[in-house]
Amino acid sequence: MKTIDLNCDMGESFGVYKLGSDEEILPYISSANIACGFHAGDPATMRKTVRLAIENDVAIGAHPGLPDLMGFGRRHMDLLPEEAYDLIAYQIGALWGVVQSEGGQMRHVKAHGMLYNRATVDPELSDALARAVYDIDPNLVLFGLPGGEVLKAGTNVGLQTASEVFADRTYQEDGTLTSRREANALIDDTNQAGAQVVRMIEDGKVRSLQGTDVDILAETICIHGDGPHAFEFAKNVREKIEHAGIKVQSFA
Amino acid sequence: MKTIDLNCDMGESFGVYKLGSDEEILPYISSANIACGFHAGDPATMRKTVRLAIENDVAIGAHPGLPDLMGFGRRHMDLLPEEAYDLIAYQIGALWGVVQSEGGQMRHVKAHGMLYNRATVDPELSDALARAVYDIDPNLVLFGLPGGEVLKAGTNVGLQTASEVFADRTYQEDGTLTSRREANALIDDTNQAGAQVVRMIEDGKVRSLQGTDVDILAETICIHGDGPHAFEFAKNVREKIEHAGIKVQSFA
Amino acid sequence: MKTIDLNCDMGESFGVYKLGSDEEILPYISSANIACGFHAGDPATMRKTVRLAIENDVAIGAHPGLPDLMGFGRRHMDLLPEEAYDLIAYQIGALWGVVQSEGGQMRHVKAHGMLYNRATVDPELSDALARAVYDIDPNLVLFGLPGGEVLKAGTNVGLQTASEVFADRTYQEDGTLTSRREANALIDDTNQAGAQVVRMIEDGKVRSLQGTDVDILAETICIHGDGPHAFEFAKNVREKIEHAGIKVQSFA
Amino acid sequence: MKTIDLNCDMGESFGVYKLGSDEEILPYISSANIACGFHAGDPATMRKTVRLAIENDVAIGAHPGLPDLMGFGRRHMDLLPEEAYDLIAYQIGALWGVVQSEGGQMRHVKAHGMLYNRATVDPELSDALARAVYDIDPNLVLFGLPGGEVLKAGTNVGLQTASEVFADRTYQEDGTLTSRREANALIDDTNQAGAQVVRMIEDGKVRSLQGTDVDILAETICIHGDGPHAFEFAKNVREKIEHAGIKVQSFA
Repeated sequence: MKTIDLNCDMGESFGVYKLGSDEEILPYISSANIACGFHAGDPATMRKTVRLAIENDVAIGAHPGLPDLMGFGRRHMDLLPEEAYDLIAYQIGALWGVVQSEGGQMRHVKAHGMLYNRATVDPELSDALARAVYDIDPNLVLFGLPGGEVLKAGTNVGLQTASEVFADRTYQEDGTLTSRREANALIDDTNQAGAQVVRMIEDGKVRSLQGTDVDILAETICIHGDGPHAFEFAKNVREKIEHAGIKVQSFA
Repeated sequence: MKTIDLNCDMGESFGVYKLGSDEEILPYISSANIACGFHAGDPATMRKTVRLAIENDVAIGAHPGLPDLMGFGRRHMDLLPEEAYDLIAYQIGALWGVVQSEGGQMRHVKAHGMLYNRATVDPELSDALARAVYDIDPNLVLFGLPGGEVLKAGTNVGLQTASEVFADRTYQEDGTLTSRREANALIDDTNQAGAQVVRMIEDGKVRSLQGTDVDILAETICIHGDGPHAFEFAKNVREKIEHAGIKVQSFA
Repeated sequence: MKTIDLNCDMGESFGVYKLGSDEEILPYISSANIACGFHAGDPATMRKTVRLAIENDVAIGAHPGLPDLMGFGRRHMDLLPEEAYDLIAYQIGALWGVVQSEGGQMRHVKAHGMLYNRATVDPELSDALARAVYDIDPNLVLFGLPGGEVLKAGTNVGLQTASEVFADRTYQEDGTLTSRREANALIDDTNQAGAQVVRMIEDGKVRSLQGTDVDILAETICIHGDGPHAFEFAKNVREKIEHAGIKVQSFA
Repeated sequence: MKTIDLNCDMGESFGVYKLGSDEEILPYISSANIACGFHAGDPATMRKTVRLAIENDVAIGAHPGLPDLMGFGRRHMDLLPEEAYDLIAYQIGALWGVVQSEGGQMRHVKAHGMLYNRATVDPELSDALARAVYDIDPNLVLFGLPGGEVLKAGTNVGLQTASEVFADRTYQEDGTLTSRREANALIDDTNQAGAQVVRMIEDGKVRSLQGTDVDILAETICIHGDGPHAFEFAKNVREKIEHAGIKVQSFA
């Protein structure tokens, strides 16, 4: 029986500010990427999210981001690799403190926003990310884009990696995601998203916007948690996956 | 042979801003309390300080503070006990991430500034502090003022505690520190500071400003690291201690 | 014809985080208290809010708060009066920069959250607040609770003040607000809120929870902008006021 | 009689962290660029610095930077022009609030660090900077590198501009500064720095590292305030300038 991981970014509220539908979505995913206080999240939000993940038997991962709350970690900042390493180690540790005090266990790391995007194409940054993860806990699974530098760096340092695909994003014929600046970057139709996901898992292929089939390795599926219909989308995608006889489970 | 721990607050620089004489003082102490990014410190400073501590064979401890960089954690903030618990768990974890990635080990926790002061007199806050420490790692040693709530709370939850005395502060006849607002709160003379420390270790007594002897338990001595003569002070106090036949060593 | 000011806290979003229904409520109020980046708000949010206020012909005021985004300025921080003065001058100036660059004009100042609450009972803090406002622009109107220290301090330094009452809060027989910790602190019923407001404006009296009538000076009415029905509430209260033949207008 | 402005970055301390020798240097300069709380500075530091500038009869300018205290505004952040506009308007306003409350007047604006560097080569960013300054106060003088986009943008929007040269930096034959990564980027010798400055003022020329003379417009000279010998350097450069019969005065 095939298995697949379903992940979602979580714990991105801050103080009185609420973001995402964590409680609604948690029952449908297997891995939660929890913000660590730099691009989003605060210690109380982290604890609440960790508790919810444990209650829902969802694997906990760190979701470190750039130190830019005002920009939600989506604005590029020029960091030296050692600066990135330090920021990442700090954030993984911070979440570890919360997880540890809740009796849970951290399982994976997925970089957030612009840190994720840049690491995908920057070998030095990916190396810093992979080393920070490995040096803290060599058993953590590192998530990254298929074909990108993060997976290479993770493998190089000796980490288990997970090739991440997106349920609600379209792909180009070179296997990259269609830029969000393009009109047809997003898949709104749940059936289409579910079908894309199932095909990626079963056949290792995705139909690109150019109409060609592209090879793609799907080890974890990213579900977005912050839209108005995020909950229904997550529920439907999971149903499509299970209906195809694929089991949803984390790497734990 | 008697032993004593010498501790100092460290890693309180931030970005381009330098504070303290960490490198000069580290050879003379046995425990470093490292700031965790809230009242002071940043991920790069934390790494640098952790490395220096490891190189000098000095025990590493977390020094969590209030989330007030502008006020250096010295301004009171009304926190609920669970807010304090979360902030402390986050900070201990953050330092753990850095320590872990450097191959070191965390040994103790000492709260900073107003968090330390309030916890000393607030049982609920002390309980939150002690539980956060215990829940993350029950082998950590919790530092606190003799007779204060922190040591009680630490003992209650099952932690090893360390009663902290000060080399450069005078004491009142009730065993509390003379307030810094008083003219004679500080001991500038190294010989006097050294003699006070040796007597506290050997006899468990300190001469109060009122002229009476007060019982005091000295398990760790705090040396201040941020004055202009901090280095010489640390060196001299250590020499006085060793000259009295007492061995300086951490709780590790 | 009697007139009254209707004010609402605005611009309390931050980065991607949205708070409040500013656009919906602005047509019904006459004064907007705009967050200045410390407890909430960021430069882009401030500009957007200033623009909306100008478009709706609503008077712009500064809403300075404590430097605690994580706690939304609702947690007490011990500030020296001069620290408070500096934080307030900085924030009023920051909003002034945005207002000025939009061709608008600032008309009033209302402190936020715990800064407002503490200033109400602390003459030194109120004095710092009033002086900061006056020293920046003596034509600004300072909002404060009736009978509290803010209005006294404002009058002392020579500012025009506005006695602020609440549409959706109940009152005690000593004229103070019922604590939010009490069950009946809030008025959910719009009709009741409208009737309370009209009576405060017309008769200068409010019926306390103890059943007695209390004298109260209503110069500006605070409408809350962050509940799920904030828009309808604002609309209904304004209609009740206008139906009673009272004109809603700012102090500009 | 020729005149020249001498400017220095000031007010870059933060909380307990001290940076720069503001008090020592102020007697020797004519314009102070005061940090506004984003890359450095805090409300109390700003007030103290504004007071010192007024006492020393030194013109006050805003020194806005990127929102990155940890990186001291020296790390590039990708900002949209409107984001930059908002951050700059906020910071100029914040300093204005402090200046206004001290009875002073703001005279100029100089961007800090990476904001300055990027604006020099980015017309859109320079346009945002120039518009923010103009929209707040069209009488402010905008400082920028000779030949760079900031001066062009300032002129375009109708601002008075000041072409800024450096006393302690060497120049390339294309008129740009030698990169700090190069060994000979800095001039340590005060006599050489003074001679370079005097020649730039008198002849409008500087000898490049390649040995050729380059035309350069010197309207304001930047003195660095944060080195160990900053005070002596400032004093000596001013003496060299005055000895050459040139008067030091601001644009006020």
